Amino acid sequence: ERASAQQFQAGPSLRHLLQELGEVQHSREKAARLFEWLIAPVSSQRFFGQHWEKKPLLIRRRNPAYYQGLFSTAEFDAVLRDQEVQFGVNLDVTSYEDGKRETHNPLGRALPAVVWDFYRNGCSLRMLNPQAFSATVWHFLSLLQEQFGSMVGANTYLTPAGTQGFAPHYDDIEAFVVQLEGKKHWRVYSPRKEAEVLPQFSSPNFAQEEIGEPVLETVLEAGDLLYFPRGFIHQGDCLPDAHSLHITVSSFQRNSWGDLLEKLLPAALQMAIEEDVEYRQGLPTDYLAYTGVVNSDVIDPRRTAFMKKVQTLITKLMNYAPVDAAVDQKAKGFFHDCLPPVLTETEKTLSVYGLPARWENGDVRDVDVPFSENTQVRLLRYGIVRLCNEGDKTLLYYTAENSRVYHKEEPKYCEIEPEYTDGIEFLLSSYPKYVSVEDLPCVTLDDKIALATVLFEKGLLITKSPLFSA
Amino acid sequence: ERASAQQFQAGPSLRHLLQELGEVQHSREKAARLFEWLIAPVSSQRFFGQHWEKKPLLIRRRNPAYYQGLFSTAEFDAVLRDQEVQFGVNLDVTSYEDGKRETHNPLGRALPAVVWDFYRNGCSLRMLNPQAFSATVWHFLSLLQEQFGSMVGANTYLTPAGTQGFAPHYDDIEAFVVQLEGKKHWRVYSPRKEAEVLPQFSSPNFAQEEIGEPVLETVLEAGDLLYFPRGFIHQGDCLPDAHSLHITVSSFQRNSWGDLLEKLLPAALQMAIEEDVEYRQGLPTDYLAYTGVVNSDVIDPRRTAFMKKVQTLITKLMNYAPVDAAVDQKAKGFFHDCLPPVLTETEKTLSVYGLPARWENGDVRDVDVPFSENTQVRLLRYGIVRLCNEGDKTLLYYTAENSRVYHKEEPKYCEIEPEYTDGIEFLLSSYPKYVSVEDLPCVTLDDKIALATVLFEKGLLITKSPLFSA
Amino acid sequence: ERASAQQFQAGPSLRHLLQELGEVQHSREKAARLFEWLIAPVSSQRFFGQHWEKKPLLIRRRNPAYYQGLFSTAEFDAVLRDQEVQFGVNLDVTSYEDGKRETHNPLGRALPAVVWDFYRNGCSLRMLNPQAFSATVWHFLSLLQEQFGSMVGANTYLTPAGTQGFAPHYDDIEAFVVQLEGKKHWRVYSPRKEAEVLPQFSSPNFAQEEIGEPVLETVLEAGDLLYFPRGFIHQGDCLPDAHSLHITVSSFQRNSWGDLLEKLLPAALQMAIEEDVEYRQGLPTDYLAYTGVVNSDVIDPRRTAFMKKVQTLITKLMNYAPVDAAVDQKAKGFFHDCLPPVLTETEKTLSVYGLPARWENGDVRDVDVPFSENTQVRLLRYGIVRLCNEGDKTLLYYTAENSRVYHKEEPKYCEIEPEYTDGIEFLLSSYPKYVSVEDLPCVTLDDKIALATVLFEKGLLITKSPLFSA
Amino acid sequence: ERASAQQFQAGPSLRHLLQELGEVQHSREKAARLFEWLIAPVSSQRFFGQHWEKKPLLIRRRNPAYYQGLFSTAEFDAVLRDQEVQFGVNLDVTSYEDGKRETHNPLGRALPAVVWDFYRNGCSLRMLNPQAFSATVWHFLSLLQEQFGSMVGANTYLTPAGTQGFAPHYDDIEAFVVQLEGKKHWRVYSPRKEAEVLPQFSSPNFAQEEIGEPVLETVLEAGDLLYFPRGFIHQGDCLPDAHSLHITVSSFQRNSWGDLLEKLLPAALQMAIEEDVEYRQGLPTDYLAYTGVVNSDVIDPRRTAFMKKVQTLITKLMNYAPVDAAVDQKAKGFFHDCLPPVLTETEKTLSVYGLPARWENGDVRDVDVPFSENTQVRLLRYGIVRLCNEGDKTLLYYTAENSRVYHKEEPKYCEIEPEYTDGIEFLLSSYPKYVSVEDLPCVTLDDKIALATVLFEKGLLITKSPLFSA
Repeated sequence: ERASAQQFQAGPSLRHLLQELGEVQHSREKAARLFEWLIAPVSSQRFFGQHWEKKPLLIRRRNPAYYQGLFSTAEFDAVLRDQEVQFGVNLDVTSYEDGKRETHNPLGRALPAVVWDFYRNGCSLRMLNPQAFSATVWHFLSLLQEQFGSMVGANTYLTPAGTQGFAPHYDDIEAFVVQLEGKKHWRVYSPRKEAEVLPQFSSPNFAQEEIGEPVLETVLEAGDLLYFPRGFIHQGDCLPDAHSLHITVSSFQRNSWGDLLEKLLPAALQMAIEEDVEYRQGLPTDYLAYTGVVNSDVIDPRRTAFMKKVQTLITKLMNYAPVDAAVDQKAKGFFHDCLPPVLTETEKTLSVYGLPARWENGDVRDVDVPFSENTQVRLLRYGIVRLCNEGDKTLLYYTAENSRVYHKEEPKYCEIEPEYTDGIEFLLSSYPKYVSVEDLPCVTLDDKIALATVLFEKGLLITKSPLFSA
Repeated sequence: ERASAQQFQAGPSLRHLLQELGEVQHSREKAARLFEWLIAPVSSQRFFGQHWEKKPLLIRRRNPAYYQGLFSTAEFDAVLRDQEVQFGVNLDVTSYEDGKRETHNPLGRALPAVVWDFYRNGCSLRMLNPQAFSATVWHFLSLLQEQFGSMVGANTYLTPAGTQGFAPHYDDIEAFVVQLEGKKHWRVYSPRKEAEVLPQFSSPNFAQEEIGEPVLETVLEAGDLLYFPRGFIHQGDCLPDAHSLHITVSSFQRNSWGDLLEKLLPAALQMAIEEDVEYRQGLPTDYLAYTGVVNSDVIDPRRTAFMKKVQTLITKLMNYAPVDAAVDQKAKGFFHDCLPPVLTETEKTLSVYGLPARWENGDVRDVDVPFSENTQVRLLRYGIVRLCNEGDKTLLYYTAENSRVYHKEEPKYCEIEPEYTDGIEFLLSSYPKYVSVEDLPCVTLDDKIALATVLFEKGLLITKSPLFSA
Repeated sequence: ERASAQQFQAGPSLRHLLQELGEVQHSREKAARLFEWLIAPVSSQRFFGQHWEKKPLLIRRRNPAYYQGLFSTAEFDAVLRDQEVQFGVNLDVTSYEDGKRETHNPLGRALPAVVWDFYRNGCSLRMLNPQAFSATVWHFLSLLQEQFGSMVGANTYLTPAGTQGFAPHYDDIEAFVVQLEGKKHWRVYSPRKEAEVLPQFSSPNFAQEEIGEPVLETVLEAGDLLYFPRGFIHQGDCLPDAHSLHITVSSFQRNSWGDLLEKLLPAALQMAIEEDVEYRQGLPTDYLAYTGVVNSDVIDPRRTAFMKKVQTLITKLMNYAPVDAAVDQKAKGFFHDCLPPVLTETEKTLSVYGLPARWENGDVRDVDVPFSENTQVRLLRYGIVRLCNEGDKTLLYYTAENSRVYHKEEPKYCEIEPEYTDGIEFLLSSYPKYVSVEDLPCVTLDDKIALATVLFEKGLLITKSPLFSA
Repeated sequence: ERASAQQFQAGPSLRHLLQELGEVQHSREKAARLFEWLIAPVSSQRFFGQHWEKKPLLIRRRNPAYYQGLFSTAEFDAVLRDQEVQFGVNLDVTSYEDGKRETHNPLGRALPAVVWDFYRNGCSLRMLNPQAFSATVWHFLSLLQEQFGSMVGANTYLTPAGTQGFAPHYDDIEAFVVQLEGKKHWRVYSPRKEAEVLPQFSSPNFAQEEIGEPVLETVLEAGDLLYFPRGFIHQGDCLPDAHSLHITVSSFQRNSWGDLLEKLLPAALQMAIEEDVEYRQGLPTDYLAYTGVVNSDVIDPRRTAFMKKVQTLITKLMNYAPVDAAVDQKAKGFFHDCLPPVLTETEKTLSVYGLPARWENGDVRDVDVPFSENTQVRLLRYGIVRLCNEGDKTLLYYTAENSRVYHKEEPKYCEIEPEYTDGIEFLLSSYPKYVSVEDLPCVTLDDKIALATVLFEKGLLITKSPLFSA
């Protein structure tokens, strides 16, 4: 009997972990614990102190079952059979031979017979965003994204024995290569120059002679982990005796200080111009005479004063820089990128998804949401909502209605009336403790219940006890 | 135990019919038989002769189970629970009271608690394109579309007892109102004037005083059918004692002779200008003197000759009109609108979906598609492919990779080399008979197998016997 | 002393003619007389009967002074000096040597030193739309456009002795080559095939071997005229002993029956659909089975009926075709293309340009427009205004505020209230007779004066006598 | 005999000045001298020290002839008669009565009879950009623009006695109100608040009660000058006994430090990110927890460190800020805004406009540009060219081919090969001295002559002596 895509389950280590995490109250702690498991036995402290954005880390476990259940080739086969995987959209067929990198995607749906025929002929298969097809990968990544405060993505790579699917290159993300099956020979190279350290954009494919000598060469086996920062060139190829399946977990794409400044600086300048007349004063009438590239070597006290003035105005920008608003702009982007949360069965029971409202015997039943002053509530996750000011309005952005398919949905938000923002801040600061509806800082009990109800109906709030007994 | 959206099954009449249709060879006959069932006991001949595009038809069956299993409120409830239904996208909440029609859609996902709360408060619930959520509706419509040669769509309407959800109006489609549960009081009115007979576009909402007296007034009960042509104003309301669920099956939107001419005329004129110098000859140098609205009452032999010339040129257009190409342009639109086919289990076995190619024990198995000269093949359905010329190329449009969600996918086609078009025409003309691969009119056996394989791999072709024995 | 661009005056023949035309009342007669002069001694009747759109006409006059004063190289030199001529916009520098056609335009303003340097090196100089720079060419073309009811344009070509500036090609306009100075060897070739007779678009450059043998070969000398229809391939080169200057006057670009039908057919179909239910009726449900390119050879009574129906509907289109409205659409385009009229000194005196309203000694003087019931008025030209219906409005399009630079101004029009349209029609039908303001068919005398005043102030109306005595 | 628009000449003071300026070598000195005349007897030093961008200046001269010849109502009348002035484009008809500001522009050309009728009925007439119609205004502004290093524009305002044409408002430009004829009562008000000091954008019209008490109230008479900075509210009305004509000369629109920073900051950040890894380092993984508007009051050492880091990165931006390149971007905008230079008769003789190349007696004459190593050349004006780097290229922007009509022409530039940039810098630094062609720092004499020739042919270079003797 052939497996269907619904049936796959995590192996002992992962299954146990996810079960434990179901009991952890704070979603940031869930994320931290999951990340610790990913990089164990290395500690988070050591990892972020010594490796993150600095240098590769290799963890060799000699435990093929460690990551079992995260993803497998059998699950990939079932996904091809049961779900609508499209060549070029969800799956790339590639090869790298004699220094030549090729893509072989036909058009249309990727059915097993065609896909496996490519594989048999030596092609690599890269599944993009497997979280759209695998519930476990979705669960895994959705938890992890709170660890990074930045989108966490993934691709899987299936490579036939004795072949290589990709040319050496570097990426624009922090990469965690999780070896799931078989083994793969990896070579990792340092950034070639200062400008390629922590780059903003991925590289083109390199020729072998462009990349120097590897700083790390190893054969990853199932259960092993290899991390390297963006900018580190890498290539992996299969030994003649074994295929390879790995999943690369990635984060921190366009998440640098510079990316924040790109949002911050135009707003800072606009506010400086509005608030500080010094920015509105005219340029010297003669400035063109001693500035411009033609005059860049000119020595002139007017030029010196001009440059000093520019320096002063740039430095003073910080006084007007709306840093928090710019962070919220970045947060909006992150919230749009986020995977929606995966609820445990218990969480479902405590959430809007557990309500018994239904059609039965020709009429609706149990339609009321029975919130009272004593109902105990909390946010489902910490990182599931964010309050942002936009113009005169306060908007609540949330991830709960995002799709597993990247950016398939528009950013989701609702406007929050001023009298409710304190209530939401209260829920955030109380998290993960449950609070009584009556403790929400709103004026009337009706307001308190209304706020709790609207958040509950959007799937953002859960109750401490089921609203209905089974 | 609550039902999930997968579990719903057709009732005795529909189940039996679909089983029988599984044995019918020709997809057009499947479609015809399904349509006969829809309008039984009226015959197709009588329907198309007396009612279609002419006047309403009411079929009263006194058999509540007749349409059972097509859709139900219980299935609607399960869909809300299990699938991502969005307010405003897939579901509209409406009311019509004291002559005022309102829409009450909130933003975001439509969860049962919220939806049923609206219902309890007297709102109607219109589910758009239920074929995206219900496998039976999908199956039903996908078969029916070959009957009409035009997109077949549907909406379902759930109305609480004693309420009305919509104002009187007319639509731009032929409507088949299939009463599924409860009962509804309907009033149907003739088009108000010649210009509203078979209109191109739907009307706004009317006030009661604008629509005159109904030509048909009735109470539909479960198992009944009401048909009316586009342009017939209609309104339905629930009696105080029963809710109502019906599904409206629709077709022939923008599918008139005029719509065809909109594609045909510009092409016809372009060809006439290219091929016939009479269209390229200059206008009379003095024509502005006796034409134009200012001169419309002028009596002048030059004006008479001018008008006669225009008449001649319009009449002669037919000589250059590429009618077949214009039809193919229309067919392309229809193919883009089409639902993808639903395969029976047997058909799956005989199609690319039945191939055993798979991942097993660390390697791929049974990857070959073992087509030989003796393999017997035919198209899966007749109306699943269409050859169209575009410029110098021949493109094969097909519906097999469409989505159940309207226009979610781009039109699907592949280019066909000239040596293969005869093969495809042969498959079309042989349908529903199976033919041997060796009988395909291609030059070499390799070509014959290549053509069969490419169509098979796209899900367009099935074999007479399974390629692999179980 | 060097000439300025203002100083050039027509030679004896043209000067005399323009003087005479100043006395001609009807602008169409002015146009007809000017055209007769252009093609003399051939009569208009013979020209339009035997040559127009049919075959070339060569008129050899042995009178170098015949066209004198229309344009000259000395005027071209003065224009370069005094006006802002831009390379690539107003002037092209070209060469054709050894079968290779090249354009040598630099960027920016074309000053004499640079232009003449190109000329000295064997380049041809094509001035585009010389009417923007030469008052005589403007005058000439603005009169002529009423002869054709289609935009009349021009280019001038100055070619050094012993060179050729352009490759053989055909144009999309009727061409009148007016030899102004020197001489040029011309070869004209028949259209190569039926599809190139009276073509809609100009050809690319041809190689000599593509064009066959000329049907006409001659050396044009100053005072000669060569006409050929669009589609006739042509090339001209200078003999070793003389440069050449000619002006090509052109008309009838996109002015064919087909061009009118492009405006007419979509409107006709729209009206047919609105007014005739036969166009709104649905296509046969089975039409895709016997139509389309795949079925183009099928013999089937349903196909025959289908085609017959299409034929009927196309033929019947004439019943709904708004021919006059389509003509007015074409007229609007023509009016936008038109050159503004050139007023004689007398006309200026009788028009708004002759009003004495002015600033003098610190205040305004003679501001009133003293129209009374007895003022005698008429339109300045017949072809200067056109009434068009647009939606519910009547718009008066006019050419008087166009620019000498092609399409520099937007189409000019004003809305006409219903009570004034009869007055404008009356002015058109009375033209060129003067009528009393009191005879205008408006309700009140105030209305009559108001209509006359608004047309007068736009420069469209003149009075019989000056409103103010000098 | 009525004046034509060509005939107007400057009065004694201005005529004498322009004559003197013709002898001044350096174009910046021309500009400075012209500006001194404009504000005499106040010195430039005092003006820029005490008034510019600070407070109004009133200069009362009791010399009605002082500005005579710059512009007059008689010239305005002649312009209406001779040139194509369009309502709404070149001329606005306005009124301000009982607190209500109205615009009365009809469509189309503004002819004297219509314009003067508005005036007689109490409307004000604002001519926009009179430099397009008046050679003296053009001359005046084109010289002045080098004084400001920013576009200098103008409008003229003609107001009937006893009326006011505009509501109180402030503008976004420095304004010099030059009273030309009659007199006008002016009231000027301080900016109402800090944010309206030196504003970036003009205000809407104000009601009288919004603007407080004037800081300056006066009656300007012909020959007087009133300056006020942007942001100062102002209104002017005519006394019952005299009309008023003034021209407002304006500059420094969007020419502030903030406007420069808008160009500079994005480029600075891009360079910082490219060159300094600190900008490419990732944000802290937990930053969303203590930043954002929700956390703006949080006290947390991580927040403090975050803000300090942002401050550091902003301050450090100056190290990477391409100030010169940003200035050149601004300069490009200024060069596009500039009026083209007005050449004196002498300058014409020494420039490309003085070359004798011409058509004479059937052939070209004197076509060579006889540059030799000994030819003495210099730039026509200092502020007529600017070298800017763009990507890898060096472009020479220049104003000489701009139009008198604002932005009618695209920005004009040509690419300069690397071997010629030194030559252009040499010409700039030598200006206003003449240099020998052989002194240009190019490799070969051919290069030197080529560079001089191309600049000369674009009208940017003049020779010390005429290249040809008369």
